[in-house]
Amino acid sequence: MTYSAPINDMRFLINDVVGLDDVSALPGVQEVTPDLVDAILEEAGKFAADVLAPLNRQGDLVGAVLENGVVRMPDGFGEAYRQFVESGWNSVSFEEEYGGQNLPLLIGTPLSEMWNAANMAFSLCPLLNQGAIDLLSAHGSAEQKAMYLEKMISGEWTGTMNLTEPQSGTDLGTLKTKAIKEGEHYRITGQKIFITYGDHDMAENVIHMVLARTPDAPAGSRGISLFIVPKYLVREDGTPGERNDLRCVSVEHKLGIMASPTCVMSFGDDGGAIGYLVGEENRGLECMFTMMNTERLGVGLQGVAVIERSYQQALAYARDRIQSRPIDGSSPTPVTIIHHPDVRRMLMSMRTAIDATRSLAYDVAAAIDRARHHPDKEIQAANQKYVDLMIPVVKAWSTDLGVEMTSVGIQIHGGMGFIEETGAAQHYRDARIAPIYEGTNGIQANDLLGRKIMRDGGTGARAFVERVKETLGEMDGNDEGNLRLRTRLSDSVADLESTLAWMLDTYPGETNRAAHGAVPFLHLFGIVAGGWMMARSSIAAKAGIAKANGNAQFLEGKLLNARFYADHWLPRTSALREIVCGDTGAALDMAEDAF
Amino acid sequence: MTYSAPINDMRFLINDVVGLDDVSALPGVQEVTPDLVDAILEEAGKFAADVLAPLNRQGDLVGAVLENGVVRMPDGFGEAYRQFVESGWNSVSFEEEYGGQNLPLLIGTPLSEMWNAANMAFSLCPLLNQGAIDLLSAHGSAEQKAMYLEKMISGEWTGTMNLTEPQSGTDLGTLKTKAIKEGEHYRITGQKIFITYGDHDMAENVIHMVLARTPDAPAGSRGISLFIVPKYLVREDGTPGERNDLRCVSVEHKLGIMASPTCVMSFGDDGGAIGYLVGEENRGLECMFTMMNTERLGVGLQGVAVIERSYQQALAYARDRIQSRPIDGSSPTPVTIIHHPDVRRMLMSMRTAIDATRSLAYDVAAAIDRARHHPDKEIQAANQKYVDLMIPVVKAWSTDLGVEMTSVGIQIHGGMGFIEETGAAQHYRDARIAPIYEGTNGIQANDLLGRKIMRDGGTGARAFVERVKETLGEMDGNDEGNLRLRTRLSDSVADLESTLAWMLDTYPGETNRAAHGAVPFLHLFGIVAGGWMMARSSIAAKAGIAKANGNAQFLEGKLLNARFYADHWLPRTSALREIVCGDTGAALDMAEDAF
Repeated sequence: MTYSAPINDMRFLINDVVGLDDVSALPGVQEVTPDLVDAILEEAGKFAADVLAPLNRQGDLVGAVLENGVVRMPDGFGEAYRQFVESGWNSVSFEEEYGGQNLPLLIGTPLSEMWNAANMAFSLCPLLNQGAIDLLSAHGSAEQKAMYLEKMISGEWTGTMNLTEPQSGTDLGTLKTKAIKEGEHYRITGQKIFITYGDHDMAENVIHMVLARTPDAPAGSRGISLFIVPKYLVREDGTPGERNDLRCVSVEHKLGIMASPTCVMSFGDDGGAIGYLVGEENRGLECMFTMMNTERLGVGLQGVAVIERSYQQALAYARDRIQSRPIDGSSPTPVTIIHHPDVRRMLMSMRTAIDATRSLAYDVAAAIDRARHHPDKEIQAANQKYVDLMIPVVKAWSTDLGVEMTSVGIQIHGGMGFIEETGAAQHYRDARIAPIYEGTNGIQANDLLGRKIMRDGGTGARAFVERVKETLGEMDGNDEGNLRLRTRLSDSVADLESTLAWMLDTYPGETNRAAHGAVPFLHLFGIVAGGWMMARSSIAAKAGIAKANGNAQFLEGKLLNARFYADHWLPRTSALREIVCGDTGAALDMAEDAF
Repeated sequence: MTYSAPINDMRFLINDVVGLDDVSALPGVQEVTPDLVDAILEEAGKFAADVLAPLNRQGDLVGAVLENGVVRMPDGFGEAYRQFVESGWNSVSFEEEYGGQNLPLLIGTPLSEMWNAANMAFSLCPLLNQGAIDLLSAHGSAEQKAMYLEKMISGEWTGTMNLTEPQSGTDLGTLKTKAIKEGEHYRITGQKIFITYGDHDMAENVIHMVLARTPDAPAGSRGISLFIVPKYLVREDGTPGERNDLRCVSVEHKLGIMASPTCVMSFGDDGGAIGYLVGEENRGLECMFTMMNTERLGVGLQGVAVIERSYQQALAYARDRIQSRPIDGSSPTPVTIIHHPDVRRMLMSMRTAIDATRSLAYDVAAAIDRARHHPDKEIQAANQKYVDLMIPVVKAWSTDLGVEMTSVGIQIHGGMGFIEETGAAQHYRDARIAPIYEGTNGIQANDLLGRKIMRDGGTGARAFVERVKETLGEMDGNDEGNLRLRTRLSDSVADLESTLAWMLDTYPGETNRAAHGAVPFLHLFGIVAGGWMMARSSIAAKAGIAKANGNAQFLEGKLLNARFYADHWLPRTSALREIVCGDTGAALDMAEDAF
């Protein structure tokens, strides 16, 4: 149950596939050399392995608990968090003005992956804090930024997102929490559920970002405002003062991420919690969109991370466990199970799922860097468009694979996989939340289809298809792997094109029929995007092998990954195309009471 | 979290699809009329809903625990088991000679499904008992049968299977438990793990069927013998007497089926447990094959059952939960989520997975009845061949879908699905064991390919393909559903044929390459077999509609299920064919230390 950060894979991806050069050269981000990347990855890898990973199992066993009104974290979490903050890990990707280190997201992203792989429950604390920081950075007043950002960026204080209410999940337009103006501030009353790290004992203050409705607000999503509601009101001198009128009334018993306190929060039981408006009244939901991309990228990374952790464990078991003679008769005695073809298939499924989802996530992170900082506005815009298109894919495809592959991780263990002490089961349980939160994967699919594709008439999606074709054109060599990958990826991108055309035709007139296929369509999109990254990875690996830098086995492994991806994942796109475009609507024709 | 037995579906399947007539007419089984089937299903449905289902959540929370050497079942389980036995549910499918009711397995199978859907952890007790009874019935001496069978068939005593040891899971040839002859009996010493219901407080005796090795036995699987090792030695008068030298030393902490005690059993700590040889020395593994088919059918049914339970819960939630306006703008206010196309897709995936796996399992159960009792030896043999071929498919395909579909069941609930109180998560956890025990699904795939297909040169598999084609020939009508199902099933059966041919060609020379594709091949086989059952179901539904018996909506629902199956599941076979036959061996080429 140890974790070792896959630094070679990360470095290869950053330097040779996604491309560190142009990201590092962007104005306004800290310049990063490959040596600095190495140093950061190695330090972070140590922290993840030595500090966070050892707490993962205990966190799962004990969980966060509410005792006498206080949410207590499992032993060791508070100390680990203190070290996390003191080492500066919380601040790497934030603005320098408030103490951030201003590293590109391309570097922050592998670090997030490490924290999540080591301890997903722990990592939700900085992930939610990041959302709150992004919101305040974009929409807070100068005074608000000065008051909160520095301590949130350092991690001394943590931030939360208070959106969901019992009747109001996907559809935030129906939320009821009230905000009544009282001089310079507002009084907040209402109940919020599913509030990740809504309370805990690792930081001296918790800054809640709360969606609420003023009395005269219009109905629906255009009547929602955003407020800062600190656990402790902040004094003039910047220190936490009086306790605000809010509390955690319950911590949920969940399937996984036990150490992450999922709180029911009650605001205003004693007359109203004091809250401060962020931006303008009734513009709260719009504000949310600014942090959505990075938060969803963060959740997509949880998918990547949990597969990596599950893979490392399954691989160790497969190398160690002796059982049965080889099916081809090549040994008269039992062998370690990594020699059995079906176990290899399972391990390779996991490896390639990791490679494909990770590389896409990192590529999107680099595009966010460019969209934020590139001096050429056109390049900025093109990158933003790519990011907007890909975020639902990264979030949903990676997390669906997270569930599927952690299940494979259990299967590789046989009976031991079902025993909790082994640890494989925890990953399967932890992984299950990621397709649900930050917008369910069904919502991601609707976002991809309705917002990201239909609104621009498919322009962004077609631009992506062209990029895949360009990469295909750059692949040379007719060796088996290259040929297979080129052929299969060509077929798959054709499947994507025809399904895209079908969607563009069908959505306007038969929206339900199109929406019925949204999730399989997103999976098709993901598999093609992953195949594209595998092709880029192959090109980079071949270039590296040609240079004979001494890591030939590693690079040959990348070529084998790409070939397995072509063999094992890309054939699915034709089935998905059929499932989407060939559907005759049986699910829509079924009467409600006939289900 | 209630359960309601799907009696309409079961009855339709038994009477109209699988065919009750010929099974009921078999010599040596109790004759069953449709009215009797109804009465049995209704009584059993009540028992499952009223007695077993309410204990499911509590069983999950509390689990079976070892306290002072005694395995205590959760409150209520003992009483439920007493009622189960007193109502005669344990004995339905067993021989009359020892108190069984001799009902066909076609009737016993839906009952097993009900018990498992209501309470999977509870149902493992009768399932393992059935294995032990099957073993004794086939291989026990007259004296042994007289001593044990009646009480095991009634359920007063329960049976276990003691196979696995720490070093010896899939490969039983390596087991070390010793049996030393001492007069009329043997002394057994050794440790067994993963022993389901290895001890518990619901019955007055536990009869262990134990695999062990005599001192002079040949090495490997040809040196294993089978023993009866009762918890309490049985007195001359048939009552339990002295405690035998065996005990449960630990109960595992598992991911699911918490109330099913998974025991580490220690035999002979005080000099050796008394055991009685079953059959001949060194023939123990052969004996095991006699109970394997019914046990694997039973585990396959757990896959069906857990999807059914998860579906019922998800459906209730989807009908109740109001969230978001319809995407097609058909309502200005939010609607219950069953109106959203993606939720319908998920529900229909579950429905059709249930229909397909259930109908295949019942069809195989009927074939077991024929293979046991049909007066025509040729028909017996043909049915046995079909059963042998299909058992690994039923076991592995149904349980893999069990995992996949209970995950969908969670997803339909959104955030509530991740909260344990909701109950959806339990099914996801419980479902995960079924692809592992009774032979992992990888082993099932090897069994299908190596034993069931290669050994007869594909004759049995080709006979199955011909049966599918016959059914296709029986489908008439060119309505949309029929046409779609016919076209898609024709394509899928062609995928199966060509993949089968590839396997027959490839296996002898490139065994590893063939074995690498065994699991996707099994899935392909399952999808085609499920499609065949959907076609048979369609034919029966159309005939029923023509008769206008008043259950038109139900039968139309079956046609919609079949059409959805054609749209949603059958397109996958072409991808699976490509994955199997087009594989270039990347996973086999990877060096062990390059993983």
